[in-house]
Amino acid sequence: MAKALEGIKVLEFGRFVAVPFCTLLFVNLGAEVIKTEIPGSGDATRTAPPLTEGGEAYLFMALNRGKKSITLNLNSERGVEIVKELVKGVDIVVENLRCGTMDSLGLGYEGLSKINPKLIYASISGFGHTGPDSSQIAFDPTAQARGGLMSVTGFPGGPPTRTGPSIADYIAGLHTAFAILAALRYRDKAGKGQFIDISMQDCIWSTVVPECGGAYFLNGRIPQRLGNALPTGVPYNSYYTKDGMVFIMVGNEAHWQSLLEVMGKEDLGDVPEYSTSIGRVNHRDELDLLVQEWTRPKTTKEIVSELTDAHVPCSPIPSFDEVPNDPQLLSREMVIEVEQLISGRVKVPGSVFKLSETPGDVKFPAPFLGEHNYEVYSSMLGYSEEEIGVLTDEGII
Amino acid sequence: MAKALEGIKVLEFGRFVAVPFCTLLFVNLGAEVIKTEIPGSGDATRTAPPLTEGGEAYLFMALNRGKKSITLNLNSERGVEIVKELVKGVDIVVENLRCGTMDSLGLGYEGLSKINPKLIYASISGFGHTGPDSSQIAFDPTAQARGGLMSVTGFPGGPPTRTGPSIADYIAGLHTAFAILAALRYRDKAGKGQFIDISMQDCIWSTVVPECGGAYFLNGRIPQRLGNALPTGVPYNSYYTKDGMVFIMVGNEAHWQSLLEVMGKEDLGDVPEYSTSIGRVNHRDELDLLVQEWTRPKTTKEIVSELTDAHVPCSPIPSFDEVPNDPQLLSREMVIEVEQLISGRVKVPGSVFKLSETPGDVKFPAPFLGEHNYEVYSSMLGYSEEEIGVLTDEGII
Repeated sequence: MAKALEGIKVLEFGRFVAVPFCTLLFVNLGAEVIKTEIPGSGDATRTAPPLTEGGEAYLFMALNRGKKSITLNLNSERGVEIVKELVKGVDIVVENLRCGTMDSLGLGYEGLSKINPKLIYASISGFGHTGPDSSQIAFDPTAQARGGLMSVTGFPGGPPTRTGPSIADYIAGLHTAFAILAALRYRDKAGKGQFIDISMQDCIWSTVVPECGGAYFLNGRIPQRLGNALPTGVPYNSYYTKDGMVFIMVGNEAHWQSLLEVMGKEDLGDVPEYSTSIGRVNHRDELDLLVQEWTRPKTTKEIVSELTDAHVPCSPIPSFDEVPNDPQLLSREMVIEVEQLISGRVKVPGSVFKLSETPGDVKFPAPFLGEHNYEVYSSMLGYSEEEIGVLTDEGII
Repeated sequence: MAKALEGIKVLEFGRFVAVPFCTLLFVNLGAEVIKTEIPGSGDATRTAPPLTEGGEAYLFMALNRGKKSITLNLNSERGVEIVKELVKGVDIVVENLRCGTMDSLGLGYEGLSKINPKLIYASISGFGHTGPDSSQIAFDPTAQARGGLMSVTGFPGGPPTRTGPSIADYIAGLHTAFAILAALRYRDKAGKGQFIDISMQDCIWSTVVPECGGAYFLNGRIPQRLGNALPTGVPYNSYYTKDGMVFIMVGNEAHWQSLLEVMGKEDLGDVPEYSTSIGRVNHRDELDLLVQEWTRPKTTKEIVSELTDAHVPCSPIPSFDEVPNDPQLLSREMVIEVEQLISGRVKVPGSVFKLSETPGDVKFPAPFLGEHNYEVYSSMLGYSEEEIGVLTDEGII
């Protein structure tokens, strides 16, 4: 089967989540990704718990499958020289070392673009490469906090809440992946590469504003944490049931009328205060209470069945263990097994890229540290087995 | 200034957030996006509160600036014919109507690819186009719930928590944008388009698993909601201060030793139970308490200053109104003003795409409903002013 990004070569200086996830998207669609790691220890996620019995970290495996791992000590002159040789043969460099690190080694865009003017060089950092805080260390929570996401996640009266997974890393990785392909398109037309500077704070902010920014920018009101409710629609919330919770989502007038019918409250269909989206938002508490009183004595299953029949959007809220057993998700091959050399079979998510001609494919294991040293250094730089042995002994690779 | 996606033409059948955000990414990098809307009412977000005094919805403006709006009634035969004419002149169709709607009108990939075999056709839906639940109505919370995100967001003992903004819409929109550019690359090489089927549930699941899936897949444990903590690292949490909260993130051994030093707890540096990442995760509660006791009597500012000096990653947790006044974000031009014809100046997020040769640009207003009917129908289909008038009177556009 053809692959959309076949022939594209990516050199990754990535660690933790943002860049490894970004380049995993490239792996999924057929690009070759060479991940450079510190000799001896590698990406910090290689020791992140939980580990398999064989000592491999789940987080590392999930984010780095299908990549080639080479080791490379950037704190040695020879290591830096090797990078300069490698970039001659790649299309893309992606990095999320601390902002300024690559520049200080002569491995920033300025340095590498002189060697390969067609190079696309993408950098993900907490705050970007410009501005007063650009040199500050930042992780996912920094961006979730300073991008405004935590301020609008969580319950009224409760603390600002971090989204469970490192969502700022994923969102920044996705923006970067899109920008790289756009830059690749431009390179193929214009013949030159460029520098892509992605800030995790910028990315989070730009996804928070559309729904939460209006209150502040139009009316000077500070958007509050609304728990599971939506600022722009009511009823649109999670409600307690006899045996758990259910999400009910009124997205338009038809849903509202149907919900009233199912609840046996058709009489409210004529109340002018409730007849528009804005009106219902202004009567949030009483409408949420109305729905809550209706859901409380019924089971989630009963409610989902009744509302689905009436075409009112609703959803159960499964616990984590129910999700990988969801027939829908399984039918999409979103739980697959890869065979790790050391740990044996491990379950990971499949590819979200259901493309009819060039489907995504992630049925590859994650590499062990330096697994592809020989392959990459011999094929790309022509090093002999002996030279590779010397570089290894000297701690350069 | 050159634009990376100049010359690319996108026909959007989008509503709410996922597809409008996806195509906004294309606008940012210079593509032409033609948004089709229902005559008379348009995208449902046009009436989502809050509205400007001029009656324009902030949510609609934030997601649709720089696009061309044309009206088109898909429930009329002539409207369907018009779509078939339009797709001859576009590169990409993106839609998030209810799964199956476009197919039932003969406007699915099968129908349109016969008219334009080079067409890339992307569809975003709650569950994708295959599987037992593919026909169910789904919104963002459905995917946040059934993708597992809600199960791992929120505090121990509290309810599963929805991330404030419609993060499943954004994440699905981003995956789709990346897939489209990959497919475009393939089209330019292989000469044929393809169908892209993106499920919001799939996308959320694939970002939840790397950090939260290991516990379940390796050890059969159900990952719990950890509030603001991280499953894979400790201390890594929000802590109460004298005047608010602070986020402290120990990402490696150096951070840990530095934190102990700042707290005056160097003696704990030798405790074997705390000397590895896994060890600290196993002593989560006592270590969080230790840090909490240290932060409680100090102000957030004091703590951030002390820890920053010691190179320990940390962050204040600003309230929403502080974010658009953050000097860092402002320096990146992430709060810009666009001039809306009816509402005047409105503040929206700038472009996250800081590309050196082809920077993103979003300084365009959002269109009013059908603003570009004349321009698009005359230039793409050669309709006269009179014909456009008739189509308008007949409610077809």
